[in-house]
Amino acid sequence: MDARFAATPAPPFFAVIFSSTRRDEDAEGYAEAAERMVELASQQPGFLGVESSRDAGGFGITVSYWESEAAIAAWKHQADHRATRERGRQDWYAQFEVRVCKVERAYGFVNKDLA
Amino acid sequence: MDARFAATPAPPFFAVIFSSTRRDEDAEGYAEAAERMVELASQQPGFLGVESSRDAGGFGITVSYWESEAAIAAWKHQADHRATRERGRQDWYAQFEVRVCKVERAYGFVNKDLA
Repeated sequence: MDARFAATPAPPFFAVIFSSTRRDEDAEGYAEAAERMVELASQQPGFLGVESSRDAGGFGITVSYWESEAAIAAWKHQADHRATRERGRQDWYAQFEVRVCKVERAYGFVNKDLA
Repeated sequence: MDARFAATPAPPFFAVIFSSTRRDEDAEGYAEAAERMVELASQQPGFLGVESSRDAGGFGITVSYWESEAAIAAWKHQADHRATRERGRQDWYAQFEVRVCKVERAYGFVNKDLA
């Protein structure tokens, strides 16, 4: 298994789609915080996994997966996460969009020639 | 507005999260097909927008947004899209995961210093 894919269960579950563009500042502070937030999220009750990609042009999409809306709300109110989000608005992001979703169907494919 | 973000309406609407890793083959054919599929999708009834990122390590996330599940089903059955998906399984993707979701909440942020 490629660990960049989240091993999510059968639906229903929940997803937070976070699309963003970065400012050209504090790359190191941002990278450290991003890593710490993934570590912290993965310790939250109801966390199912995360997938993340940022392209060469600086456009990124991170999707975190959760068992319930209550788990998402608890993560939103986690103190360190709150403080880090505030820094994100002030220092790191040019723009972001957040969409909170209920995953209703899911399927996947692994190429057998490569597996 | 940064056109890499989809200008989605107030929820509810629907999202298809497509996470993938590419095989190291036919980069040109893939890029052409990907561009053609975005063009074709944008002509489908109920299409709301698309966001896409692929990182230097080859992990990509594309999220397309739709007015209804019926619009997603119609796009799934579109003939050219079907044929291209088949090529994707045979030639282009090492692995992919698809999650079909109902977007229940959405919010965004634009840094005023940069706007």
